[in-house]
This record gives sequence, C-alpha cells and structure tokens, in this order.
Amino acid sequence: MEIIKGISEMHKKAKEFRLNGMKIGFVPTMGALHEGHLSLMRRARLDNDIVVISIYVNPIQFGPLEDYKTYPRDLESDAKKAQDVGVDIIFAPMDKEMYQDKFSTFVEVENLTSVLEGRSRPSHFKGVTTVVCKLFNIVKPDVTYFGQKDYQQALVIKRMIRDLNFDIELQVLPIIRDKDGLALSSRNNYLSEKERRSATILFECLQKARELLENGERDSSKILHEMRSMIEKRELVNIDYVEIVDSENLERIPWVKGELLVALAVRIGKTRLIDNMLWSENK
Amino acid sequence: MEIIKGISEMHKKAKEFRLNGMKIGFVPTMGALHEGHLSLMRRARLDNDIVVISIYVNPIQFGPLEDYKTYPRDLESDAKKAQDVGVDIIFAPMDKEMYQDKFSTFVEVENLTSVLEGRSRPSHFKGVTTVVCKLFNIVKPDVTYFGQKDYQQALVIKRMIRDLNFDIELQVLPIIRDKDGLALSSRNNYLSEKERRSATILFECLQKARELLENGERDSSKILHEMRSMIEKRELVNIDYVEIVDSENLERIPWVKGELLVALAVRIGKTRLIDNMLWSENK
Repeated sequence: MEIIKGISEMHKKAKEFRLNGMKIGFVPTMGALHEGHLSLMRRARLDNDIVVISIYVNPIQFGPLEDYKTYPRDLESDAKKAQDVGVDIIFAPMDKEMYQDKFSTFVEVENLTSVLEGRSRPSHFKGVTTVVCKLFNIVKPDVTYFGQKDYQQALVIKRMIRDLNFDIELQVLPIIRDKDGLALSSRNNYLSEKERRSATILFECLQKARELLENGERDSSKILHEMRSMIEKRELVNIDYVEIVDSENLERIPWVKGELLVALAVRIGKTRLIDNMLWSENK
Repeated sequence: MEIIKGISEMHKKAKEFRLNGMKIGFVPTMGALHEGHLSLMRRARLDNDIVVISIYVNPIQFGPLEDYKTYPRDLESDAKKAQDVGVDIIFAPMDKEMYQDKFSTFVEVENLTSVLEGRSRPSHFKGVTTVVCKLFNIVKPDVTYFGQKDYQQALVIKRMIRDLNFDIELQVLPIIRDKDGLALSSRNNYLSEKERRSATILFECLQKARELLENGERDSSKILHEMRSMIEKRELVNIDYVEIVDSENLERIPWVKGELLVALAVRIGKTRLIDNMLWSENK
C-alpha cells in the first residue's frame, strides 16, 4: 500500500492505471476509519483491480461552528486498517494544494440540498460536492462507494454524477451498526459513556417507525409523533429533525406511499448524530 | 469524420481512445463555425491523435432576453468545415439528454465572473462552466482549445480547470479578424450591411488604445475616455462597457502597470459584440 499526498502524483498514477485498463474503485473518506468505511473498501476490493481511498478532512464542508478542528485525525492508525482490507493507495492531500490561493470554483446541487442535513448545515453539501468533484477528477475512478448512513449525501452525489456526466458508477452500501444498533460514525468517538448509552435512541426510534409501518400505519405525522416522544423521554438528547420523506426527491410525505426514507438528526451534548432507514410498501 | 449525438456513445469512444493511449484534443463550440473556430481545430489537429469538437447551443448560458432562439444553427455546413480541417468527431448532443428531468447541478466560478461579461450577462458564466464541465467529463480531452476573443471565458475555464483539478491542458489562441479588423464571431451574421460597417469601431478603438499605450499614456481613464468618444461618434453603436483591467484577476486598474486587458462590449442594433486586446508594459 502506498500513501500519496501530491495531487499531480495521484493524477499520474490514476492515468497509468487507466491506460493499463485497470478498474479503479474509490472510497472517499475523512479518515477516523471504522467498520462502515471498511465495509466499503472490502466491497471495492472485490469489484476492482485497484482500490484507492482518500483521507481528507475537507474544511469547506464544515460550518463555522462545527467540529472541523476537533474532527479525529490519525493517519497512522487509518493506514493500518486500510492496508488490512487490501487498499492499494491512500490519497491524503494537503489543504494548501486542495484549496490554492484564490480558489473560487464550486459545484452545487440545488433542491436536494435544501432539506434535512442541508437545512441544518447550510453550506455543507456545497463543500461536499465540490471536494468530491475534485477527488473524482484526481482519482479517476470507475466505481465509487458511499455509505447509506449519509443517505442524502449519496443521493446528492448520485445527482451530481448524472448531471455533470461523470463516467462513474455509484454504489451505496448498507449502514453498519454496533451491537446495540448505533450506526457507526467517526463522531461516536466524541460521546461520553453516558451519552453513548443515550445514543441508542436513534436506532430504537427507527425500529419503532418500522414496527408502525409494518403494522399498517400510513399517517406520517403519527409515526413522527411517536418517534419524537420516544426521543424526548431520553436523557441528554435534543432533536434536530425527524422526517419522513420520499426516498428519491426528499420531499416530505404526509401519507406513506412507495419508497420512503425515515431520517433523523439529534444532538447529544456537543455531538450531532444522524441515522436513517429506507422502507418500501412494495417489498 | 463521425457525428455522435448520444452521450453514452461519446463516453464509450473517448474511453476507447484513452485506453489506446491516444491524445484527445477538444474544441467546444456552439456551431456557426468561422475561421476563429477553425484555427482552434487546425491547432488541435497538429497537437493530438484525435480531434473532437462539440457543437451545442447551450440553453443555460443565454439570458431570458438573449438570442438563444435565433442563434445560427447549420450542422451540415459546420460538418463540412470541420471535416476539411481534419476533425475526427463532432459531438452534437441533444438538449433532452444534456439537461434531463430535474437537472440541478451547477458549476460556478466566483469573483472572476462578476465583472465585464458577467456583469452584463448575470447567469452566463454559470451556464458556460456547467456545460464545459459536462463536456470535459464526456469527451475526456487531454487538451482543450479556446479563443482569446472570449478572453474572460477562457480565464474562467482556466480557473475551473485548476480549482476542480481537471487533468486537462488549456490553450488560448489569438483572435482571428476580418480584413477590416472586425473580430470573427457567429453573431456578425446578425449585422446588416450598414451595421457591419459601423462594427469596425471595436477594433479601431482598441488600436487607438494600443497607440496611446505605446506612446506612454498610463492613465486608464484618459485611454477609456478617448475610446468612448470614438465609439459615441459612430452611428448605430451603443456602449455596454469599455474597461481596462488586470489580465489575471480582471480588476479595474486606474494606472497602467504589468499585463492588462482592454475589453469592450457594444450593441449595434440588436446585436451585441465584444472584443479585447492584451497589452503588456514589459514586452
């Protein structure tokens, strides 16, 4: 495994792979790798000749009051994990090369980014689509892998790939959870023991939503009310949003029909956590 | 020569060329090809294994009151000209494939696009950078060619290439002029005979600016005043803007220093024409 920091070196390598007809699988990450990330890499390993991951804490996708500075960074430990699952290249660029003097080009997906995470984190997706566009151009993948944990992000990237005609296949893989159901996230590291115990509420109320849906409940407001009451009873947890939306356009659906997404974000102490569940009437 | 209309067919072709190690030169156009375009294609022919041009009147770079509907379209005559200079592929996509249902992703270069043409045509460059990003992803060129006639456009594309890490070299080639000095433009077709005679004022006042600069004038306002008076004396011509700016950041320079751009836009009847001249103190 190789760690590449220079953009032009990565360009050159990727061009070489392409020229040799090798299929490149790409997993963009911000590091602090956990089993969620590793599941994407294992899948990329199965499907491709070359597996590239990026580790880059992208400053422009954090809001001014968010956790950019404290976001966990440990390249050494990440590199070990990546090597163990068969990654070929870690691309870990530097800020000053990624965002040069007078950087002024941005990629934006409209509409899809104005709801859910986009409503709570106004310039977040602009930062995500811009950096992913850059990484796609540098790494030149055939296939890219995203986790369903950030469902809206995956949907936004899917739209960007379609609209800007990137010749890249997007694979979205399932959420990986801890034994108690908490979705894996690098931000779980921020939680105290007590907060960690409260955090299971995200999965618990998604389970409750599933149960209601399976039992035939179709009125979204009733399901959401039930979820909110559960969360409000839980110590230390504050709701950011709980929503039931169409899984394609992310518009709220008052009455359940077709394929939907139940998505929520909460704050536990200083930590913001998200989770979601896809559900379809016609399984 | 081949005319390709389907995006996926173009993707496939470009991928094949790349895989065979062939160098792709790309000239994006809106058709109505003239010697300006052809000079780019001839240069592309010299430098590359494969020359691709696109012919696409991109709806999203026209304002609501602009000439999208009347812009000249003649694929047959364009194809003949392209073939004569050795173009391999004309990529001529369809609107409904370029801008699918719920198209919502845009590429924007900030700052550089708020002056000159960007001030007069507010969403123009957003449309240009978005379509060029799409075309780059589809055609996968090694080198792309733009004319200096649209100097600001070339500069904006250069910034986009740098910021988004496109692995593409940009070549900007000189303005091609008619015998009387009028810069070639597809929009010259709109001019009546009388308007055509008035239109030489653009080049004439750029020549005047050059003369003043060569003679040591360094006060931009004096040069601009001289240019404006010349234009105002010419029948049928209305000034949109006349400016002297830094050739890198396009900021106005009151006192001439380093490399500068003299740029102007005028309206003659319903036709809007632009022209420009680079000038450097240290030649």
